Amino acid sequence: MLVDGQWRTDAYESTNEEGEFDRQETSFRDRVRSDADAEFPAESGRYHLYISRACPWAHRAAMTRRLKGLEDAISLSVVEPVRIDDGWEFSETHPDPLYGEPYLRDIYTRADDEFTGRVTVPVLWDKETETIVNNESREIMRMLNTQFDEYATRDVDLWPEGHREEVDAALDDIYEPINNGVYRAGFAETQKAYDEAVGDLFDALDRWESVLSEQRYLVGDVLTEADIAMFATLIRFDHVYHTHFKCNRRAIHEYPNLWNYTKELYQLPGVAETVNVDHITRHYYRSHGDVNPKRLVPVGPDVDFDAPHDRDRLDANLPSDLAGDAAPADD
Amino acid sequence: MLVDGQWRTDAYESTNEEGEFDRQETSFRDRVRSDADAEFPAESGRYHLYISRACPWAHRAAMTRRLKGLEDAISLSVVEPVRIDDGWEFSETHPDPLYGEPYLRDIYTRADDEFTGRVTVPVLWDKETETIVNNESREIMRMLNTQFDEYATRDVDLWPEGHREEVDAALDDIYEPINNGVYRAGFAETQKAYDEAVGDLFDALDRWESVLSEQRYLVGDVLTEADIAMFATLIRFDHVYHTHFKCNRRAIHEYPNLWNYTKELYQLPGVAETVNVDHITRHYYRSHGDVNPKRLVPVGPDVDFDAPHDRDRLDANLPSDLAGDAAPADD
Repeated sequence: MLVDGQWRTDAYESTNEEGEFDRQETSFRDRVRSDADAEFPAESGRYHLYISRACPWAHRAAMTRRLKGLEDAISLSVVEPVRIDDGWEFSETHPDPLYGEPYLRDIYTRADDEFTGRVTVPVLWDKETETIVNNESREIMRMLNTQFDEYATRDVDLWPEGHREEVDAALDDIYEPINNGVYRAGFAETQKAYDEAVGDLFDALDRWESVLSEQRYLVGDVLTEADIAMFATLIRFDHVYHTHFKCNRRAIHEYPNLWNYTKELYQLPGVAETVNVDHITRHYYRSHGDVNPKRLVPVGPDVDFDAPHDRDRLDANLPSDLAGDAAPADD
Repeated sequence: MLVDGQWRTDAYESTNEEGEFDRQETSFRDRVRSDADAEFPAESGRYHLYISRACPWAHRAAMTRRLKGLEDAISLSVVEPVRIDDGWEFSETHPDPLYGEPYLRDIYTRADDEFTGRVTVPVLWDKETETIVNNESREIMRMLNTQFDEYATRDVDLWPEGHREEVDAALDDIYEPINNGVYRAGFAETQKAYDEAVGDLFDALDRWESVLSEQRYLVGDVLTEADIAMFATLIRFDHVYHTHFKCNRRAIHEYPNLWNYTKELYQLPGVAETVNVDHITRHYYRSHGDVNPKRLVPVGPDVDFDAPHDRDRLDANLPSDLAGDAAPADD
């Protein structure tokens, strides 16, 4: 909240006494339900997603929306990629389409005028009651996948019956060492905290490299939410985590299976549109003055996400709306 | 020099108005000559090299001394790798063997008590007149190669007759885009200065990658000073320049010819002893707080300089003292 004209936040990004990065919990944890009597019932046109194209957590929501074909049902807007002093902000090119606010924090205070938590993306906003339903990426991904099927233009289920426990286990498994692990490495304040984070990260990547040598996706032959969470980290890895967060033992494009897996997911219909390397690189390198004080944006690796992959050698049980080389005509 | 107890230096590392890194000229430019009547005649036991194992310029001198077999003729000592506030320093594990001074700057003020220039390595010190003969790496490399043959235990000439102009041209050619280019990228203060430096750097690396696909060394089939200068940059590239100086378009181990060339040079008898990856990484990441404020040392790539190379497919005219797989018995 604003106190004497200054934004007050009690916790944004912080490290504990051991110099380890401690991610704060998200604050809004309500649910949209397909049940018409729910507090937040699934409806077309009622909800809005505020995201950043830079942020891997927001990417989960944007990618789920796109893979399900929820573009007409759930509106979406993108904040400015570079986050300087006052948090995520809107601009002329990236405006707040609902209220014309200057900062994303203003959306948070519309929901709760005493709010002093972290101002993060994604935000799932209810236009009817004018509040934040949820700002936890894993829960938003789940809601978009399970509660909006009536409005989805693609028959895609990323949490399929018969695999739900495995999906949840894979999401849990990759969170700490990989999704959050790159941040634990990059925001470590001590060599010990960095060494532990980067050790955990590459142990996990090595393990998944081996798993993906024998199966197409994280949970066997079905594409799931776990793949979306993994992809959101892998697609950013070589451009930012490798250099900016010093995760430089190996690049993803040097892991044959992880790299081909990343390219396959990138090439699924609609996914490339959710990836903005310019926003990703400018965000990280320009926003974190404590890691990159000159805020220079590196040239980045000359990798090609559109290059052929070899994943067809492994069985896939893809929904027909996602199979095939080209995006459908309505994309 | 010390002014009111504070070390005063008029120029250390600096950028110009365009935000470009401007390397200051070195200050001591006298020469050792093989002529006994010279001001600084070549003698065994008279000269001392102060180097850092971290520094690519110092590496030129150490590597020339080693390839020529001048270990008994010219003594050598190594400074502490991490350079914090007071410049290069000595320590219990890396002492000044001549005077027991705490800082390398004290060696400079022994040579010139009004000295306010850059305190750099390598330093070629004359124990007899107690002064610095020279602190310019290219000139020291040339002196060690050409003036000490009487004391060299290996018959190696790195500036061979018939190739001298080509060697000098190659040294000139790689200096600005490659040897100094990584610093121009890493110490750039503006995006424009960085973009230009990193563009020049990778244009030059791409060009030499192509040259080295058809010839063994920078100047045809003979190993020369130009190779030493190139090696000193390439051996540091993947651990520090790629991440720390943001030269991340490509790693050297992703260039087939530059990488095999680097491995071949590393595996020449004696060269591996001149490479200290621990000193290299700790120096850069811990010394440059303006680039890496948390001074964390990254894990680094899992590359193996001892792995097989494929350079034997190209002709080499190596001195017999350097040919062969293993180092001679007296190494």
